[in-house]
Amino acid sequence: MTGPVAIQGEPGAFSHQAARQLFGEAVEILPCRTFTELFGAVVEGRAAAGAVPVENTLAGPVAENLDHLSRHAVRAVRETQVRVELCLIAPPGRTEDSLRRVASHPVALRQCRGYFAARPEVEEVAAYDTAGAVRDLLEGRASWDGAIGSALAAELYGGRILRRGLEDDERNHTRFLGVVAGVAAEPGEGRKASVSFTLPHRPGALYDALGVFAVRGVDLDWIVSRPIPGRPWEYRFHVDVSTPDRAGLGDALGALAGHCGELRLVGAYRPEA
Amino acid sequence: MTGPVAIQGEPGAFSHQAARQLFGEAVEILPCRTFTELFGAVVEGRAAAGAVPVENTLAGPVAENLDHLSRHAVRAVRETQVRVELCLIAPPGRTEDSLRRVASHPVALRQCRGYFAARPEVEEVAAYDTAGAVRDLLEGRASWDGAIGSALAAELYGGRILRRGLEDDERNHTRFLGVVAGVAAEPGEGRKASVSFTLPHRPGALYDALGVFAVRGVDLDWIVSRPIPGRPWEYRFHVDVSTPDRAGLGDALGALAGHCGELRLVGAYRPEA
Repeated sequence: MTGPVAIQGEPGAFSHQAARQLFGEAVEILPCRTFTELFGAVVEGRAAAGAVPVENTLAGPVAENLDHLSRHAVRAVRETQVRVELCLIAPPGRTEDSLRRVASHPVALRQCRGYFAARPEVEEVAAYDTAGAVRDLLEGRASWDGAIGSALAAELYGGRILRRGLEDDERNHTRFLGVVAGVAAEPGEGRKASVSFTLPHRPGALYDALGVFAVRGVDLDWIVSRPIPGRPWEYRFHVDVSTPDRAGLGDALGALAGHCGELRLVGAYRPEA
Repeated sequence: MTGPVAIQGEPGAFSHQAARQLFGEAVEILPCRTFTELFGAVVEGRAAAGAVPVENTLAGPVAENLDHLSRHAVRAVRETQVRVELCLIAPPGRTEDSLRRVASHPVALRQCRGYFAARPEVEEVAAYDTAGAVRDLLEGRASWDGAIGSALAAELYGGRILRRGLEDDERNHTRFLGVVAGVAAEPGEGRKASVSFTLPHRPGALYDALGVFAVRGVDLDWIVSRPIPGRPWEYRFHVDVSTPDRAGLGDALGALAGHCGELRLVGAYRPEA
């Protein structure tokens, strides 16, 4: 990469881990406060690429980003999965038993019910984000003595990991797409494709559209429907499709265009095993 | 209702507003910390009903609840939509200009970028939930002087609404299902149905399944696919379907059973206009 990779969140966020997996361990990070900022940074060239979460196994689709992917001049070139392993982090020298106030984003706190239930003496403290809770703690600017975040955040800010896997449910993964500026035209060598399209709201419209994949033996890996703002009863569909041998993908997308109001190939890439 | 309605969150949460719309203004609330607790309360009879968010226009499907709905012995009997209007709330006597620290859940804070960008002197404070931020403020137990939450929270805790519609995007609605204990057997008088089913992972499986609706003129209003934990490459689909005249719904569900591994009617109800 010649240029930074935009992520939403602070260095040490799980998105930072995703950026490393997508674009290499040495990537420089451009932290953005919002996903709108992230897409802006990629489109306007302030970032060479972006790491965009699209789905979490517990929380489901990241709908905001599906909408961004269909609207901005970016294309997906890669995908990766990050295991969301929550670590209990403290300054060097602290022991787990000495902690009384532990901070993280409320969503992360809620995923650690078992940990807090077993330790009534430990108070939960809400923080703006996971990596920020770790950073503020290690930089001595926090009112808490422990934080819950990624192993990468501990590494970056010099924290000590007192315990790994604090989350109640370890089947917690987030899937990211790596995006760059530009618009995808054809699937090319990709065996998996992310596609966004609109359909008229009539019975059977989706059935007819999916037929173009079914008759060509193309797998439908994922499907999400989204209301279109300002167009009641019309929907945008986001699908991931794949083929074992990449035959049929370009042909299927061509046929799909005949069924759709708008059709956008978000990108085609090699599926992560 | 003879008995309380379980919600996730504190009294004054947007789920509380949903409970009123679903089951009447006079409902008593059973606050639960997690959705797992909420479903437990309904199944075990500690609550007469529950108000379950399934989709937000900005954030997308609430995947955790789709999973709960397919697993627990509950049935949906009603749906409603809540407009998520974020209000700036302070103790009586405070003016908007005097505020320096404003608290809410980080997701709500992020939805109010415009408000904070225009007021660099106001610090954002992360809180565990929106209604709790309002309650702690009005009960004098908070380190903040303003909070962002629902109009209902202001009413319940005696706060004054200084400004409504603080959110950047007003197209922010959450759809809730009202659930009671028991399992739905047939759509009955309902013209809309929520259905959960599993399919084998083979090309065309979803296409074939959706055909049962298409050939009967049944509308597909919403579709979400979810990976099934521990069963790689198998998916659970959540669909909402509706008919203008409720003809065909029961018949379509019968036919659908022939395509599915598991099929579960989550519930049938009158669609909200």
